[in-house]
Amino acid sequence: MAVAAAVIPDTMVALRKVAAGSGFQCDTVPVPAIGRSDVLIRVRKVGLCGTDQHIYTWDHWAQRRIHPPLIVGHEFMGEVAAVGDAVRSVRVGERVSAEGHLSCGICHLCRTGEAHICEHVRIIGVDTDGAFANFITMPESNVWRLDDAIPDSWAAVFDPLGNAVHTVMAAGVSSRSVAITGVGSIGLMAIPVARAAGAAAVYAIDINPAKLELALRVGADAAFLASDAGVVADVVNRTSGVGVDVLLEMSGSAVAIDAGLAMVRNGGRAALLGIPPDDIAINLAERIIFKGLTVLGINGRKMFETWYQTEALVRSGRIDLAPIITHELPFTSYDEAFTLMRTGAAAKIVLDVSTPERS
Amino acid sequence: MAVAAAVIPDTMVALRKVAAGSGFQCDTVPVPAIGRSDVLIRVRKVGLCGTDQHIYTWDHWAQRRIHPPLIVGHEFMGEVAAVGDAVRSVRVGERVSAEGHLSCGICHLCRTGEAHICEHVRIIGVDTDGAFANFITMPESNVWRLDDAIPDSWAAVFDPLGNAVHTVMAAGVSSRSVAITGVGSIGLMAIPVARAAGAAAVYAIDINPAKLELALRVGADAAFLASDAGVVADVVNRTSGVGVDVLLEMSGSAVAIDAGLAMVRNGGRAALLGIPPDDIAINLAERIIFKGLTVLGINGRKMFETWYQTEALVRSGRIDLAPIITHELPFTSYDEAFTLMRTGAAAKIVLDVSTPERS
Amino acid sequence: MAVAAAVIPDTMVALRKVAAGSGFQCDTVPVPAIGRSDVLIRVRKVGLCGTDQHIYTWDHWAQRRIHPPLIVGHEFMGEVAAVGDAVRSVRVGERVSAEGHLSCGICHLCRTGEAHICEHVRIIGVDTDGAFANFITMPESNVWRLDDAIPDSWAAVFDPLGNAVHTVMAAGVSSRSVAITGVGSIGLMAIPVARAAGAAAVYAIDINPAKLELALRVGADAAFLASDAGVVADVVNRTSGVGVDVLLEMSGSAVAIDAGLAMVRNGGRAALLGIPPDDIAINLAERIIFKGLTVLGINGRKMFETWYQTEALVRSGRIDLAPIITHELPFTSYDEAFTLMRTGAAAKIVLDVSTPERS
Amino acid sequence: MAVAAAVIPDTMVALRKVAAGSGFQCDTVPVPAIGRSDVLIRVRKVGLCGTDQHIYTWDHWAQRRIHPPLIVGHEFMGEVAAVGDAVRSVRVGERVSAEGHLSCGICHLCRTGEAHICEHVRIIGVDTDGAFANFITMPESNVWRLDDAIPDSWAAVFDPLGNAVHTVMAAGVSSRSVAITGVGSIGLMAIPVARAAGAAAVYAIDINPAKLELALRVGADAAFLASDAGVVADVVNRTSGVGVDVLLEMSGSAVAIDAGLAMVRNGGRAALLGIPPDDIAINLAERIIFKGLTVLGINGRKMFETWYQTEALVRSGRIDLAPIITHELPFTSYDEAFTLMRTGAAAKIVLDVSTPERS
Repeated sequence: MAVAAAVIPDTMVALRKVAAGSGFQCDTVPVPAIGRSDVLIRVRKVGLCGTDQHIYTWDHWAQRRIHPPLIVGHEFMGEVAAVGDAVRSVRVGERVSAEGHLSCGICHLCRTGEAHICEHVRIIGVDTDGAFANFITMPESNVWRLDDAIPDSWAAVFDPLGNAVHTVMAAGVSSRSVAITGVGSIGLMAIPVARAAGAAAVYAIDINPAKLELALRVGADAAFLASDAGVVADVVNRTSGVGVDVLLEMSGSAVAIDAGLAMVRNGGRAALLGIPPDDIAINLAERIIFKGLTVLGINGRKMFETWYQTEALVRSGRIDLAPIITHELPFTSYDEAFTLMRTGAAAKIVLDVSTPERS
Repeated sequence: MAVAAAVIPDTMVALRKVAAGSGFQCDTVPVPAIGRSDVLIRVRKVGLCGTDQHIYTWDHWAQRRIHPPLIVGHEFMGEVAAVGDAVRSVRVGERVSAEGHLSCGICHLCRTGEAHICEHVRIIGVDTDGAFANFITMPESNVWRLDDAIPDSWAAVFDPLGNAVHTVMAAGVSSRSVAITGVGSIGLMAIPVARAAGAAAVYAIDINPAKLELALRVGADAAFLASDAGVVADVVNRTSGVGVDVLLEMSGSAVAIDAGLAMVRNGGRAALLGIPPDDIAINLAERIIFKGLTVLGINGRKMFETWYQTEALVRSGRIDLAPIITHELPFTSYDEAFTLMRTGAAAKIVLDVSTPERS
Repeated sequence: MAVAAAVIPDTMVALRKVAAGSGFQCDTVPVPAIGRSDVLIRVRKVGLCGTDQHIYTWDHWAQRRIHPPLIVGHEFMGEVAAVGDAVRSVRVGERVSAEGHLSCGICHLCRTGEAHICEHVRIIGVDTDGAFANFITMPESNVWRLDDAIPDSWAAVFDPLGNAVHTVMAAGVSSRSVAITGVGSIGLMAIPVARAAGAAAVYAIDINPAKLELALRVGADAAFLASDAGVVADVVNRTSGVGVDVLLEMSGSAVAIDAGLAMVRNGGRAALLGIPPDDIAINLAERIIFKGLTVLGINGRKMFETWYQTEALVRSGRIDLAPIITHELPFTSYDEAFTLMRTGAAAKIVLDVSTPERS
Repeated sequence: MAVAAAVIPDTMVALRKVAAGSGFQCDTVPVPAIGRSDVLIRVRKVGLCGTDQHIYTWDHWAQRRIHPPLIVGHEFMGEVAAVGDAVRSVRVGERVSAEGHLSCGICHLCRTGEAHICEHVRIIGVDTDGAFANFITMPESNVWRLDDAIPDSWAAVFDPLGNAVHTVMAAGVSSRSVAITGVGSIGLMAIPVARAAGAAAVYAIDINPAKLELALRVGADAAFLASDAGVVADVVNRTSGVGVDVLLEMSGSAVAIDAGLAMVRNGGRAALLGIPPDDIAINLAERIIFKGLTVLGINGRKMFETWYQTEALVRSGRIDLAPIITHELPFTSYDEAFTLMRTGAAAKIVLDVSTPERS
């Protein structure tokens, strides 16, 4: 460990899944060691993701994918605590976030600018130890230095914000009308992102009226209840009967995907980020082929084009995440936080990790 | 009628669907009148399409869509017999084919270069009288002058060849590996088209061994039986285990679509031309979203970018349609032709329309 | 003339270049006749363009290009006064503007969605009679129906606003930093357009401090005097030393083009709209090749993609043309208007054409 | 040095520029050491580039750029002789070539898939020791494993072949007509590359009749002497008077650039690879802006998209470099080789480096 800022303790507090079953456990574990090209980050703030909740509740997906014991969490920011000998691009003390997808670096995709869909990707907090801890070690190549203008809480959720940016930028919204199906936390973020990126109009669709209210607060031009029989016609009416230019699908719901594709104009574009839990039935002929749609599968964040875009958009002053980060809680309140998420009372929750370390 | 080449008769022979039920009827009907901006074309050769067969057999789709009496057929070429007063771009005597999609010309899509997906499109031989006749009238804006180098039989099938070109060019095959699922007549055409357009390798997949042999003859690097359990792995093995860069889906089969999407590499592109008759179940997460695929719905031919591309590719000498046009028959043999199509014995059939007129 | 709204007079007032030499003449001339596919428009407001001034002052370019007598002017809006028999898409009484580039409709470019660069284009007010008159006749295909939300004065300058939109959209500004060299009226318009279209930052560069002040008022993040020795470094410093992502060149000045290309980052994009009067010397190796730049020549407005984009952006409420339309004058004050333009005291001037007709 | 194949000698033969002035010197120097992430390559074959000749003759560019002593050369292939501890993707004994642009890996461009235009790039044989030697050390990330199907001599020139592929693929030639101005060795390579990548027609323009003959042999549809007064018209005539879709500029000559841009159709694309030695005068208005051209500066090879494309195209069997590699000589014949280059008698020359080591 070449250079260290302050005394680094031997142990740390970490939120872990230690065995099959519901819930997490707050344990004292060793601070991870770093290799020559690694960066040790003292975590300050973390964001809670739906993925974390899947692991917390130990649902079917989690049972197949997760191998306890595991430190969970992948949305975070902190401060560089130490760097390996070969590290050149960041220094101890700098504020950083990091890309949580660890790509292999040598496959065809990694070598052609598509590391975000590397076939050998491992994800922190899912496949390897994650960020809900006082410290995390990350390869230098995954670390992102934070602009001073970006507050800690926002930086903690650059991962999902990056999902929103990736989806918006892949779809291409400049001067276009945009429908967003599903305004959970990423869908909500996509609203100001789309507006900042040049969308001429943004329409939000969801089953939850409270989320639709929040959607309007963060910049949606109109909001529509997904359960309304006329939701497709209502959105299409907003566009002189033509249909929206762009669909951002962020629900993973079969019903929403069908309605979303129905409201896109011929020749339009649909970017799919929401993950349907099962196979879904699609009328490919009517929804995609005859319409001449372009449908884009979206995964992760482009490394690091999406990060640069995210920084540029946030720095432009046009994105306000404050209404979307509905709760900031101490690290130890994680059970309360997952309850808030489960009940739909929260949009995005940020935990302050610095608390337990100092106590 | 401003200018006419030779004497134009009052009546002509036409293949018609006159009432619900199977089969066509060969009738003597009036030669159509032309408007100021129309072109009267003396039809020489026509191609038979799967759509014609649907109408011939009077299947469920045809029963809903077709309103007899109707002259059928949309693949054709001929010679300009007369032009309306306002016609400037073609002259009597010129050899022509024509785009069979009649777009409205004034909608958003027509005004932005996307007339091929005009919402008010009418298709000749489906929605209005078609080309299986001695004469057809077309708006000047749909007429395509034929290069001298292009034989009549090939010109007669520029419509489906254009579907192949549109699919190939939308997908983008230059330097890429390409899988084609479904090598009926358009899938077969897509093989030399893809190679001429720069594909580095072309793999054909079908359930019909005879079509796969034909696929190899027209330039496929390898051919795979769709029913083989290992077909996906076999194709992927051809690409160093990465998967093909591009899928051209030309079968409309749910099984083929699933297998086709499975064999595309992460970040690859899939162009869908085949029309599934029903909804199909898709694992969007595994097949499209996690892989970061781009999926393109393909409809018709771009007016007239596809036509210019088709002409350029054919003129380059790299496309040989001869093995794909398996049968050329006199116009009156249409019953035999539809039998050949139904049994799968034919790839593309061309009828000579000049025969009955002269007799 | 199929349908007429009100009594259409036989004669009208028109601003004309009647012979070689400086100035225009306000003449009474016949109201133009319309053909079957034409639309007669009662002009309400017109915008003055640099091109008009070239013709007014009768400079070298005008002497070569203009053949008097000619009604001048190409930026305008008005109301449909009458339509030809074949016109389907607009009705008498509707508020309209029109694309002033009359393309041939049958060439390769016109048939592939690139009519804006048709080789046989004729421009109203330059090659054929223009819009500085009570009436103008336009082909139906060039007419653009105006959204109710768009004020007359803004609609009158949709032509140059469309130049700005075309340049911005071709360059692609979403999430990017943008430098604009030359903030005359189109350059000024490009500032709110770029911001509405998603630019993360916009920097204006000009030789005129008053224009730079106006640039800041309409949304530029910073403004730079072109004559400052350090202008390139100053702009690059704003982008963490990387250089701007996008250059919009709107001056036509050799010095500005060189400086503009110098301030673009490697791999960036430069869209050139400004017309240099002569050949200019360029260091292609340093400015374009080694940097891997993409340089786009911009001409006119895409028909009609640019018009739809312009409408969408204006309707989004993010573009305010009020500060840029510095003067609105009666039609008869055209001499005063050209003096204001020449001295640089005005940005965009709009004339009210309805005045002389009523008097 | 973790793993070594055979005994690696302490010294090697290398072609060096040891001081200002003309010529190279063949010296015995130490075999370079490798770091943990480096690969030591036993060089087998090298290609001679115009850049090498600039250094050999010590022209103005070389005097400014080169700091002797320096081992020259950047086009090469060989066999992995040893790898550092951290190397994972290649093994001793494998046949490899390598990207000669050493990018910094941490700048904005390197992190967004544009390492080929990294601002801190160093080039082997120019800024650091190169490949005209028995051994060269390269970072693992620059090494390219060679497909068995690719002969040594072709692999030795993957660097310039990659320039050709990068230019062709950036321009996009699929179904298009292509003019190539300047058929030196890269221009010649671009002919079969463009054809394999889907060009519908390829026209070669050069001042050297012998090169034009070679151009026809490797697949040009027609060849034109640049000095002919009617060369632009002659090429345009080949395209029905429209102009070529694509220009690949590979001469760096001001006259050729002007003629090349003149022969591109409105809306076409021009990719510039040739490096003009000085500023050149361009009529931007006529050649680029009014035509709505897209002009692309091309530098190096995309890492590693271009390499994958090159491999795919070569493996497709459609590219034959044999006629372009006009000379294969022993390493010690380098003076003769540079004379052949200077006189224009050679297209591409490959030297066999294995000779002196064994003697």
